[in-house]
Amino acid sequence: MRDFLPAEKAHRERLLALIRASYRAHGFDEIETPVAEDSDRLHAGLGGDNEKLAFGIQKRGLTHDDLQAAREPLDLVDLGLRFDLTVPLARFYASHRAELPTVFRSIQLAPVWRAERPQKGRYRQFVQCDIDIIGEPTNRAEAELLIASLDTVDRLGLEGAFVRINDRRLLIGMLETLGFPATEHERALITIDKLDKVGEDGVIEELREAGFTASAIDALDAFFRRPQTMEFLTFGERAIRKALPEGADDAVVRELAEIGEAVMQARGADPLNALLRFDPFLVRGMGYYTGPIFELAHPSVPYSLGGGGRYDGMIGRFLGTDVPATGFSLGFERLVDLLERSAGSEDRAVALLHDRDVATADLLSLKARLVAEGARVRLVARPKNVKPALDVLAADGFTHFAFVTAAAPDSVDLRPLG
Amino acid sequence: MRDFLPAEKAHRERLLALIRASYRAHGFDEIETPVAEDSDRLHAGLGGDNEKLAFGIQKRGLTHDDLQAAREPLDLVDLGLRFDLTVPLARFYASHRAELPTVFRSIQLAPVWRAERPQKGRYRQFVQCDIDIIGEPTNRAEAELLIASLDTVDRLGLEGAFVRINDRRLLIGMLETLGFPATEHERALITIDKLDKVGEDGVIEELREAGFTASAIDALDAFFRRPQTMEFLTFGERAIRKALPEGADDAVVRELAEIGEAVMQARGADPLNALLRFDPFLVRGMGYYTGPIFELAHPSVPYSLGGGGRYDGMIGRFLGTDVPATGFSLGFERLVDLLERSAGSEDRAVALLHDRDVATADLLSLKARLVAEGARVRLVARPKNVKPALDVLAADGFTHFAFVTAAAPDSVDLRPLG
Repeated sequence: MRDFLPAEKAHRERLLALIRASYRAHGFDEIETPVAEDSDRLHAGLGGDNEKLAFGIQKRGLTHDDLQAAREPLDLVDLGLRFDLTVPLARFYASHRAELPTVFRSIQLAPVWRAERPQKGRYRQFVQCDIDIIGEPTNRAEAELLIASLDTVDRLGLEGAFVRINDRRLLIGMLETLGFPATEHERALITIDKLDKVGEDGVIEELREAGFTASAIDALDAFFRRPQTMEFLTFGERAIRKALPEGADDAVVRELAEIGEAVMQARGADPLNALLRFDPFLVRGMGYYTGPIFELAHPSVPYSLGGGGRYDGMIGRFLGTDVPATGFSLGFERLVDLLERSAGSEDRAVALLHDRDVATADLLSLKARLVAEGARVRLVARPKNVKPALDVLAADGFTHFAFVTAAAPDSVDLRPLG
Repeated sequence: MRDFLPAEKAHRERLLALIRASYRAHGFDEIETPVAEDSDRLHAGLGGDNEKLAFGIQKRGLTHDDLQAAREPLDLVDLGLRFDLTVPLARFYASHRAELPTVFRSIQLAPVWRAERPQKGRYRQFVQCDIDIIGEPTNRAEAELLIASLDTVDRLGLEGAFVRINDRRLLIGMLETLGFPATEHERALITIDKLDKVGEDGVIEELREAGFTASAIDALDAFFRRPQTMEFLTFGERAIRKALPEGADDAVVRELAEIGEAVMQARGADPLNALLRFDPFLVRGMGYYTGPIFELAHPSVPYSLGGGGRYDGMIGRFLGTDVPATGFSLGFERLVDLLERSAGSEDRAVALLHDRDVATADLLSLKARLVAEGARVRLVARPKNVKPALDVLAADGFTHFAFVTAAAPDSVDLRPLG
């Protein structure tokens, strides 16, 4: 877990404020849940492998007898830090459904915790940034999520981002067409998900080694070697169909194409700019997706910057009745690293370099006056060597400085910095 | 621990953004520390009674043997959720001192956790809002904290707030003058701290029952019954001296009066508005204060809205060398309850009540256009009964609405709401 120093914290808060304002503009409403959920709920099977990474909070008031009687560590735990924002959202929606709009668009910008071994780029506490639309069964939800997220990415100043799209149902259909029996689907997808890392040959090899149905692997291999076209760049019904083996589900293809059309039209985008790209091998890790899935990508980095999809079955698990849901999660920590820090958001930040004998009341009156005029003001006792101090202040985002003396504490001469 | 629904969350975020911007303007820099600290550090004696309320995080990978071998619950814990922001600040400063300005002005706006029995107005997760000045030994720090905090309270729209001030050294001096031996000081202050609740007679009675030095109690009783003046309203050296028994430390009185002068001058305040009030019986709970102490009060509520003081010894505990420090904590949860919710911060929030057959691409293009023009936009499937839906939207802060039909999805007639 990390400390954030002033420059990094300001950068993070600036991005959070931009994201919050952008999604609010698109009609989403922010909610907040406690950092801890009941341990039973965290370990109910909705979190996949992440459940194993939950930090457990010890029950209060345990006695020595309790410790002796415990059969496993979880017996001594009643709460846990959330490992994602999806389980809390499902619990929140089940608790508050009556107080929320029929179609509820939520924003969650909040930390989650995973007890992973610390390593570069993996943190035990990190911020997730999720939007979800609950209660909208049509693909209008997916289009709305994507339009809002692409606009948000624009506002953050990240140019050139694009979205890879697929549909869980097309993936399954492809596996069926190629001849994989239903029992092999989920495991085959885990291997296909490694395509980016190990390549087509690597996938085929791993499937063969794991003993999947040989004729289906041959069919996949042949499909990998099919003549490729650039047509996917146009993202339409025809392009999607061409990128898939024969026999894809017409209705699903049509639904997916519609999402693309809505995004293109709403953004006034030239289809050839390849903002959306159909990727027949996009899998997404979590097993709970039931329809369209997407990933946000950027040419400058090999990993995804976010992603999501439709997960109609999940919210209902706490509610006892099915509720349609679609979500998108921006990779906040990756965006923080990728986007340039701007040196403070204030137009005018003034450093007052004061002599030590300036009367407190005079100095603070001057400061208060500049603050009232809209500036950010920091007091700095004037150092012997001014130049390096000014360099540090400029790096900290200060735009102006002035010397303040005891003789004339009121008449300051503001000079630009840097 | 509480869920926050959209209206409450928007209210909280609006206040947090105002506080953050105000303190930044006054030259403070926000930092962030992880929610969990090492358990040993949380139980090192700096947190007073709150240490007992720390939620403990269970060690990972415990075996059955570990459970059997544990002698007390803390043996199975290595981290804990922070119960305040002061212990983390001390640890942060000790870790990062070299990267921070000589006089470091920090902002922390963050949740803390205490395993209290849930009751009205007490939460197990709540936000604290602390500013601290580390490295400034003079009373310029106290004046700067108070000016920044009073300006922040103004920006929040809370009129009529005032600050009660005292000095830990004057309190001790008063006890000495009245004849309490040093061994009785800390315990006597705990009783005097109840003055607001039990009154002067109650304090005298409790001191007698607890067996404090009888002559000193008599002297305190006589002092309580001294002729009162209204002079404290002017908060100056003379007023402070008049409010104390004979023999108060001149230098301390002078220092305290200077803080008041600086605050008055910087705010251009008429002294008679009683913005600052010397309170010779203000104690503040925590034992670590070493100099001036203050509390933010408001006529409308019987409890304090924040407070702080100088605590020069504490930061040094982790550093091995003394560092002067002063802090002020705004009672964020109380301010949230006290300040009126404004129904959303956007100037223009538009609800689009659309027929169900409007094409997705048309509807989302219309929405994107309004968002690009600066509005917040929510899509709502047009209900049979429009009037109650409009009432809910107005209550949610929406300022305009329009109907959207499939026949003419582009030509909408925006009408004001509410």
